[in-house]
Amino acid sequence: MPEPFSFRLIASDGMARRGEFVTPHGRVQTPAFMPVGTQATVKGLHPEAVAETGAEIVLGNTYHLMLRPGPERIAALGGLHKFMNWQRPILTDSGGFQVMSLSSLRKLTERAVTFRSHIDGTMFELSPERSIEIQALLGADISMQLDECLKLPATRDEIERAMKLSLRWAERSKRAFEGREREGYALFGIVQGGDDLGLRATSARELVDIGFEGYAIGGLAVGEPQAVMLEVVEETTPALPAERPRYLMGVGTPHDLLEAVRRGIDMFDCVMPTRNGRHGMAFTRFGSINLSNARHAHDPRPLDELSPHPAARTYSRAYLHHLTKANEILGGVLLSTINIAYYQDLMAGMRAAIADGRFEAFYAETMAGWTQGDIAPL
Amino acid sequence: MPEPFSFRLIASDGMARRGEFVTPHGRVQTPAFMPVGTQATVKGLHPEAVAETGAEIVLGNTYHLMLRPGPERIAALGGLHKFMNWQRPILTDSGGFQVMSLSSLRKLTERAVTFRSHIDGTMFELSPERSIEIQALLGADISMQLDECLKLPATRDEIERAMKLSLRWAERSKRAFEGREREGYALFGIVQGGDDLGLRATSARELVDIGFEGYAIGGLAVGEPQAVMLEVVEETTPALPAERPRYLMGVGTPHDLLEAVRRGIDMFDCVMPTRNGRHGMAFTRFGSINLSNARHAHDPRPLDELSPHPAARTYSRAYLHHLTKANEILGGVLLSTINIAYYQDLMAGMRAAIADGRFEAFYAETMAGWTQGDIAPL
Repeated sequence: MPEPFSFRLIASDGMARRGEFVTPHGRVQTPAFMPVGTQATVKGLHPEAVAETGAEIVLGNTYHLMLRPGPERIAALGGLHKFMNWQRPILTDSGGFQVMSLSSLRKLTERAVTFRSHIDGTMFELSPERSIEIQALLGADISMQLDECLKLPATRDEIERAMKLSLRWAERSKRAFEGREREGYALFGIVQGGDDLGLRATSARELVDIGFEGYAIGGLAVGEPQAVMLEVVEETTPALPAERPRYLMGVGTPHDLLEAVRRGIDMFDCVMPTRNGRHGMAFTRFGSINLSNARHAHDPRPLDELSPHPAARTYSRAYLHHLTKANEILGGVLLSTINIAYYQDLMAGMRAAIADGRFEAFYAETMAGWTQGDIAPL
Repeated sequence: MPEPFSFRLIASDGMARRGEFVTPHGRVQTPAFMPVGTQATVKGLHPEAVAETGAEIVLGNTYHLMLRPGPERIAALGGLHKFMNWQRPILTDSGGFQVMSLSSLRKLTERAVTFRSHIDGTMFELSPERSIEIQALLGADISMQLDECLKLPATRDEIERAMKLSLRWAERSKRAFEGREREGYALFGIVQGGDDLGLRATSARELVDIGFEGYAIGGLAVGEPQAVMLEVVEETTPALPAERPRYLMGVGTPHDLLEAVRRGIDMFDCVMPTRNGRHGMAFTRFGSINLSNARHAHDPRPLDELSPHPAARTYSRAYLHHLTKANEILGGVLLSTINIAYYQDLMAGMRAAIADGRFEAFYAETMAGWTQGDIAPL
């Protein structure tokens, strides 16, 4: 029998929290950053390399996997963990976000969203029940409810309509999840409400009434200023139960992570370390560094000689510049690895600082370090 | 003091040879296959992953590196071994082949070839002396003479003209190499002469008179049928000294390697395992397998459960099919790794068979195994 999902709060420092959750595939220390494994692979990295960065959990995308190769096929092959050779925890999103951002010919009804695949034009339907079914077929340790995620800015009426639909879908998601009796697995609800603090409060309250193993804040990092995002986070986390993990979806830059942990967030996912890595950008203690810049062409120094990750200590900036300019696969592979490793170092630093009651000092030191890079901290 | 370059013939079986050569960066067991590190990286692979396939030496391309980032820059950064984090032997080609195949506006004179970079249009000049200088700046354990490589078919006159120019360039290459006093490093001459056995014999005899640490057969695998290539190899190797390594440049398929070793070749390089891997093709004991074929979509079996390389044992054909169809970087990375590992296994199998005097049996078993794949052996 795997251990059932549970979350334990180990320490707090201001609003920042140090915790741990347990899943059928192992434990995860929080605050945690989840690398994104969109199509059953964290782009460019062997699963062993993902683990070596310190990552304890990855995210899989329901939208991409439902289109290709299909959840029934992955289930027949033994589930997503086996398929991608990652034996640690996996969280899957519900597919809602990518339906909105990637597919065409969407039609949203109370019952479901229908859409056309961006790959081959096939029509698909995604309901709360089907999303839960897909995530069960994949074998996700943590499933997410289906929600409707709007781009900001949007009108208050539109935000309210989407938030209320998401609440009704939350209830249906929970019933569907319970019907599957996946003992020890977890379902998270998603707070919506755009940049309207009143709607966010309503969403949080009603989700807590339904009751989930964890709570996400969705619909942020979709075009609004960072200050707006952080205000929503700061006002929303106190409305969520302290004994449940809190997940800020799709966020973000190292600076976003630092600020959001400071406001009570426990979990994150973002494509930024891999996507920016493929475009020649490194995230480091010294800020972000654009390796395609000619100033690095002669530079024999590694990105960070004190990094716990070998790739950041071994390869010269000149070599990473060369690989980036020559469009070599290894450039994207190394920078993606180095970036995820930096994100994991940052999370580990925050966890240690919270446990020691020195989060504010860590925050100040980290912010000061970032001013040494090529450009202002992202 | 590094050990000086030397070659030792350990065993022979028919024309097939088992040997070992020593370079300033270590020993190499022959017959050997050298993965190609075109732009200071074996495409997609960490240097540690290259070593884990069993490869003991890689090839670097003078043409690519002279254009970008430039040999003077690599020298200032400590040489190619340090630049690409590969501490084992490196052989560099002379640049001649890529000048002919990649650049435009070539002008060939007795003195040198001038050409326009395919990257940014800059004009470059490559003479035998400059090629040797570049290879010394890179720090190659084994340098190659500059030669003129023709595409086949070509007229006998044209082949003879190019062969004779290559001989004069061989002499100049040797004088330039000796002038640099790179104690312990090696220079190889290159037999030319197209598909004309008489011209090949002249080229081999005159090169041996000049005297090199090893001899390559160039100008093959440039469009001629396999039978023509093998006939040239079979007729040329007896004209080369037994106590020097013999290198068949730019070859080839697993079948080419097996046939060429059987005719006395000791060394190979080819982009095929990495290039074909990036296009979804796996080389295995069972022949070549095209993973983009839909028949693999549901197949839970690994490519080769008895492979000594974990990637060939771990990932299902269904997963490799998915990565290939989804154009995921990891697909090319895994298949490139698996293919280089298979090439190394094949070489190791040939080495053991020659040492045991059972090369013909190994040849027959290997050929029989290849008929089990998707398509006829390449």
